[in-house]
Amino acid sequence: MIKDWHFQLEQMYEQMVVWRRHMHQYPELSFQEVETPKLIAEILSDFGIEVRTKVGGRGVVGIIKGARPGKTIALRADFDALPIQDEKEVPYKSKVPGVMHACGHDGHTATLLAVAKVLSENREQLSGNVVLLHQHAEELAPGGAIAMIEDGCLDGVDVVFGTHLASGSPLGTYLVKSGYTMAAADAFKIKIQGRGGHGSSPHETIDAIAIGAQIITQLQYIVSRRVNPQHSAVVSVGSFHAGNASNVIADSAVLTGTIRSFDKDVRVQIEEEFRSMVSGICSAFHAEYEIEYNNGYPALFNHDRETQVFKETIKNTLEEGMLVDMTPIMGAEDFAYYLQEKPGMFFHTGARNEEIGASYPHHHPKFNFDEKAMIYAGKALLSMVHQYTVENVEQILEEPAY
Amino acid sequence: MIKDWHFQLEQMYEQMVVWRRHMHQYPELSFQEVETPKLIAEILSDFGIEVRTKVGGRGVVGIIKGARPGKTIALRADFDALPIQDEKEVPYKSKVPGVMHACGHDGHTATLLAVAKVLSENREQLSGNVVLLHQHAEELAPGGAIAMIEDGCLDGVDVVFGTHLASGSPLGTYLVKSGYTMAAADAFKIKIQGRGGHGSSPHETIDAIAIGAQIITQLQYIVSRRVNPQHSAVVSVGSFHAGNASNVIADSAVLTGTIRSFDKDVRVQIEEEFRSMVSGICSAFHAEYEIEYNNGYPALFNHDRETQVFKETIKNTLEEGMLVDMTPIMGAEDFAYYLQEKPGMFFHTGARNEEIGASYPHHHPKFNFDEKAMIYAGKALLSMVHQYTVENVEQILEEPAY
Amino acid sequence: MIKDWHFQLEQMYEQMVVWRRHMHQYPELSFQEVETPKLIAEILSDFGIEVRTKVGGRGVVGIIKGARPGKTIALRADFDALPIQDEKEVPYKSKVPGVMHACGHDGHTATLLAVAKVLSENREQLSGNVVLLHQHAEELAPGGAIAMIEDGCLDGVDVVFGTHLASGSPLGTYLVKSGYTMAAADAFKIKIQGRGGHGSSPHETIDAIAIGAQIITQLQYIVSRRVNPQHSAVVSVGSFHAGNASNVIADSAVLTGTIRSFDKDVRVQIEEEFRSMVSGICSAFHAEYEIEYNNGYPALFNHDRETQVFKETIKNTLEEGMLVDMTPIMGAEDFAYYLQEKPGMFFHTGARNEEIGASYPHHHPKFNFDEKAMIYAGKALLSMVHQYTVENVEQILEEPAY
Amino acid sequence: MIKDWHFQLEQMYEQMVVWRRHMHQYPELSFQEVETPKLIAEILSDFGIEVRTKVGGRGVVGIIKGARPGKTIALRADFDALPIQDEKEVPYKSKVPGVMHACGHDGHTATLLAVAKVLSENREQLSGNVVLLHQHAEELAPGGAIAMIEDGCLDGVDVVFGTHLASGSPLGTYLVKSGYTMAAADAFKIKIQGRGGHGSSPHETIDAIAIGAQIITQLQYIVSRRVNPQHSAVVSVGSFHAGNASNVIADSAVLTGTIRSFDKDVRVQIEEEFRSMVSGICSAFHAEYEIEYNNGYPALFNHDRETQVFKETIKNTLEEGMLVDMTPIMGAEDFAYYLQEKPGMFFHTGARNEEIGASYPHHHPKFNFDEKAMIYAGKALLSMVHQYTVENVEQILEEPAY
Repeated sequence: MIKDWHFQLEQMYEQMVVWRRHMHQYPELSFQEVETPKLIAEILSDFGIEVRTKVGGRGVVGIIKGARPGKTIALRADFDALPIQDEKEVPYKSKVPGVMHACGHDGHTATLLAVAKVLSENREQLSGNVVLLHQHAEELAPGGAIAMIEDGCLDGVDVVFGTHLASGSPLGTYLVKSGYTMAAADAFKIKIQGRGGHGSSPHETIDAIAIGAQIITQLQYIVSRRVNPQHSAVVSVGSFHAGNASNVIADSAVLTGTIRSFDKDVRVQIEEEFRSMVSGICSAFHAEYEIEYNNGYPALFNHDRETQVFKETIKNTLEEGMLVDMTPIMGAEDFAYYLQEKPGMFFHTGARNEEIGASYPHHHPKFNFDEKAMIYAGKALLSMVHQYTVENVEQILEEPAY
Repeated sequence: MIKDWHFQLEQMYEQMVVWRRHMHQYPELSFQEVETPKLIAEILSDFGIEVRTKVGGRGVVGIIKGARPGKTIALRADFDALPIQDEKEVPYKSKVPGVMHACGHDGHTATLLAVAKVLSENREQLSGNVVLLHQHAEELAPGGAIAMIEDGCLDGVDVVFGTHLASGSPLGTYLVKSGYTMAAADAFKIKIQGRGGHGSSPHETIDAIAIGAQIITQLQYIVSRRVNPQHSAVVSVGSFHAGNASNVIADSAVLTGTIRSFDKDVRVQIEEEFRSMVSGICSAFHAEYEIEYNNGYPALFNHDRETQVFKETIKNTLEEGMLVDMTPIMGAEDFAYYLQEKPGMFFHTGARNEEIGASYPHHHPKFNFDEKAMIYAGKALLSMVHQYTVENVEQILEEPAY
Repeated sequence: MIKDWHFQLEQMYEQMVVWRRHMHQYPELSFQEVETPKLIAEILSDFGIEVRTKVGGRGVVGIIKGARPGKTIALRADFDALPIQDEKEVPYKSKVPGVMHACGHDGHTATLLAVAKVLSENREQLSGNVVLLHQHAEELAPGGAIAMIEDGCLDGVDVVFGTHLASGSPLGTYLVKSGYTMAAADAFKIKIQGRGGHGSSPHETIDAIAIGAQIITQLQYIVSRRVNPQHSAVVSVGSFHAGNASNVIADSAVLTGTIRSFDKDVRVQIEEEFRSMVSGICSAFHAEYEIEYNNGYPALFNHDRETQVFKETIKNTLEEGMLVDMTPIMGAEDFAYYLQEKPGMFFHTGARNEEIGASYPHHHPKFNFDEKAMIYAGKALLSMVHQYTVENVEQILEEPAY
Repeated sequence: MIKDWHFQLEQMYEQMVVWRRHMHQYPELSFQEVETPKLIAEILSDFGIEVRTKVGGRGVVGIIKGARPGKTIALRADFDALPIQDEKEVPYKSKVPGVMHACGHDGHTATLLAVAKVLSENREQLSGNVVLLHQHAEELAPGGAIAMIEDGCLDGVDVVFGTHLASGSPLGTYLVKSGYTMAAADAFKIKIQGRGGHGSSPHETIDAIAIGAQIITQLQYIVSRRVNPQHSAVVSVGSFHAGNASNVIADSAVLTGTIRSFDKDVRVQIEEEFRSMVSGICSAFHAEYEIEYNNGYPALFNHDRETQVFKETIKNTLEEGMLVDMTPIMGAEDFAYYLQEKPGMFFHTGARNEEIGASYPHHHPKFNFDEKAMIYAGKALLSMVHQYTVENVEQILEEPAY
């Protein structure tokens, strides 16, 4: 029966490509999405699916009610684009200057639309419901997920799944791991307020650049000395700007950076150490400072049980797919919020194809993906719906192993 | 007799103000002076003074030949302005946007013109000659002095004097010291070429900001550990620019700074240590780098004997002036080149007057000076000419003291 | 049947205690063991076990040949002590000043002797052989394992197991994990040769302490910037000694430290970065240096399959034991060498008992363990022998899971 | 008349050598002087000079009253030795193991005794008095000077002079400079209390060595950024001791060092910055710390007028002497305390003679000086007494020059 669903999805490949390329040409930035959610809502409605719009601001939620009661499974696709100029040469290149789908969210959306179509045509088989989470603004903190959740998108949901196309992994692979797979990403900005003056008279100044250098030096100790070496953590200063002239000591300096971690306690610890170090150095140098410390998305934690269900389901239903152990990545994803609320997991779907130039990293101006990966992504999502609403999910799991 | 000269100079005060304010309204940047040297040449010619123009590019040299042979004494005034927006409210405010006489060179020039007038009218008294060095481009290395010297402006000169108006010292004072009084000023620019990448993956990058911070930290050791603590030295990083985003590790970083010293050997040592440190750190971090190290003006060294002649002459001829021991300053002045070629000295003439707002530091957008300081500056220069070409200079010095 | 073995082991508890306490009173340092291996060889011989002595120097190998052919399983116990003064008050306190069994190797040995006794009495049941690896010098690199391996102790061995008593985990637990569980531990010593001199004249010196400080600062960047944040790594400077007087700049400085890592490539990378940084800084400061970089034990890698066999076997045979997921620890263990040669695994056996004071960390002067842990350790080892030589090892494993 | 005095001193040369060599063989450490002050008091008494002993503890003060009233001039010689093993081979080598006159104080004392003898025989010529300050404990803070002053040794004194033999300058030279000539020397000790632990678990520790390194790095900024570059200053860490094992993170670290400065405000500023930096870094790292900051001798400041009197007097009376401009030295001298109370100056008397091995630096185990330097030192002191008590001191100075 799942084979039928998969077959029906394959039949929609050309439609998926049309949808995807349309969105690719008309990308919309995070929190500025207007036409994309409108289009999604229209398509879902055309399929006879019940639709809520403006969920959490700009999100679109579709609800497919099955013929019989059962579990409610949510599937999520994000639809925002990035402030990057499209530099690849394809007929469906972005028509919006400086804006581009450089992370594959257009593919996620086209995939979920096709999945919705297949499911809408197979309601009779479903014991339970499917919630389609078309989410805006994944690329920009605070992200759309948290607002959609506050707006009730997970109400009644039992389990939630999502995927990301991955231009770094071969077509046909699914990257999976239980536990932490994507990092918490926090951002900081330090403004050091010293006192400027002539470069020849440092003693009359408070040298913001020298202080900034000392701060950077000392911040290294957070990862090297303060964080448990068993836990991953990164503290990177991404920009340092101070001073206009070689012979004038800078009045102030602005540093920005990013902090990545998985473990919750480590995340809290890093912020404490960070504040302690900036404070300690600035006070030693008699400088004032301001810290903006923005907590971004938390680390994404795949639930053990749902990860195991996913792996068993894929093995049982998708012989053409290959499960691959995923190394956690330091990038962030606001799908993490759904998993704080509900059981579920997030997997990556291989979409690399060097022959057609689909091998650039995400966020690269020439990023692209093999559109056939949408079929793999969609089939896996369908398999999960099938498992939870047609098969008895309990049966797939043996006794939990030690 | 010198009293007569001083009286004649006082009579020219209003003319000096007119000249000065005209130049103040039409300032010209270093190496871009066109109208100013033209005006100077015209005025000197009007006085019947022999004039050479375009000396060393844009300099103007006037020669006043005395009635009898004797010493040739050179007097120097610079005439360039700065790339600063005039922010003071006076009728003679700069009319050139973004350009301003913010260091008093207009005053120097008006002073020397008036001195020239007085001397041109007293040629009969002179045993010897006076060379008027109207110099362009003092503010911008390599400066105008070196080119004017190469173009022969010091040929036949026995001794050279110059002064700088000083908004930080009270009207009526002369700041004097033998030996080093102004610093050598060198400039550097370091470009660190690392390898950019995502902020969450430092190991795949060569972090130009972290390397820059470590360089700044280590550069402190030049002054604190490497230079003889008996010698003054400054190594200041004035600007640090790198990176555009908090979550991207910067590909490269650019640091600029200034280095000040007096002693010649220390100057050479600092450059060696500087290059050694930048090289050592960049190699340790596998980064490439480029250093631009620009030797600016050397330290200005007042000759002992001429400094003593100056002090004795002022005491003998200018009872209204007050000699003040000068603390060496870390600022630079290309008059240093003249003193590498000929005996002489450079003094500062107090020009502060808080009541009229003439108390801002040099290079400040509201810089101004008390125009009466031009009388003090001019009288001192006339006294020196009188001493060398009318009095017997030898008589003023007793046996050199121990 | 395995229940019988376990029962027989329990009967030997008092004997184990006697052996253990004897060794505890007469501890011998690594590479200085004389009486301990002699005692072990005598006991094994008394059991009628074939013994090789002086294996790899001071090791003792016992061989128990089963009645029928089959797998050969090796079990290892180390027997050296530490240069620590025993500070606990017990009747069996160390009688050797400054030497103490502060890591539990006496317990390992007593356990393996009792296991040997049980097995020697059940040879008839064995299809296959058991090799008893009584190893000297685990505490001191290069360790005894590598020499014993070179001396043939693993010849003919199919699989190797070992355990460590753990005073930090409760009695009855077994800590297990496949993959890396203990770190590679390398040691370094840096001698910085500067040039001493009076504290008031740093410019005439090369300040070894300042250079050492800068090296430590920069070494932090290895972990914070150079190593993949997904991999654990530690670079710790453990000692810094330089200078004898506050007013004399130190001629030289000696730093020692330890480096921990799991991944092989990371281990190599750290050494490269380390050498690059020390070299870069010393050259920048014109100092000479010597680096001693001693590669200690490699990271200990438990083989997947044998780990799974262990877990299944324990679950099947030892209901009183509790398997616990082990967090990798940064400590090192030369059992790693055996696992580079043969399949196998190394587990930790809980031995904490706060009521009897057995809760101090390993290497603490008051370290002790609950002697009942020897029963747990011995039972687990017997279970593994039983699994490999009596049960069919293949049957315990289902098809390897994804 | 002064020529007579000088001649009389020359006649005492052999006696000076005998005195000096006796003291050289029986040196006594600072604050442990017993025999030396006893000997001095006996000799002075033998000359019929009024003597006070135990002044300020161990000092000896002789008073020579002139025939007529007038100025009272004090002359100082210190008499303590150093904890250094004498390594030179001479018949008068130190007989006290580990103690040695390695700075020439024996020569100072022998000189002042001979000067006393000459003056005691010429009382009739004196209008005024001479106070002989034989001071103990110059080498060890807090020094003997401050206690002798508190005990009244300067009561009634108008002017004070002293000299130091200098093995670095040729025989026959006098090194002179007005203003600061010797530095203030302060000492510090920092104890950083972190929390020790295993080298593989930095996160469970507070790494005292890493903190110490960061402190040293940051202390460089005091001289490089905080102190006016026109002022000399040195902050040197002379010792760093922490940790016993490469694989254990040190619990604590002890750093000691010396701080040199001339200017009073700079001296205060450095201590403030020092405390601020140590505090700032330790707090950033959650470490405790203790600072011992010992203010040693202040900078020695030669008074202008007395320096000029000295120079004129030497020129007038000692044609065989050569005045040399002295470069300030970073070493300290507790004569500074006398000059805080009374006008006066301190000069250095050349005593180098490479032919007889008198060229090692002060405090060197092979230090020695040309004993003829005692004649030069004594003649200069006699000349000063003559100037102040026989000549009219006012006449030697012209009107104070600008």
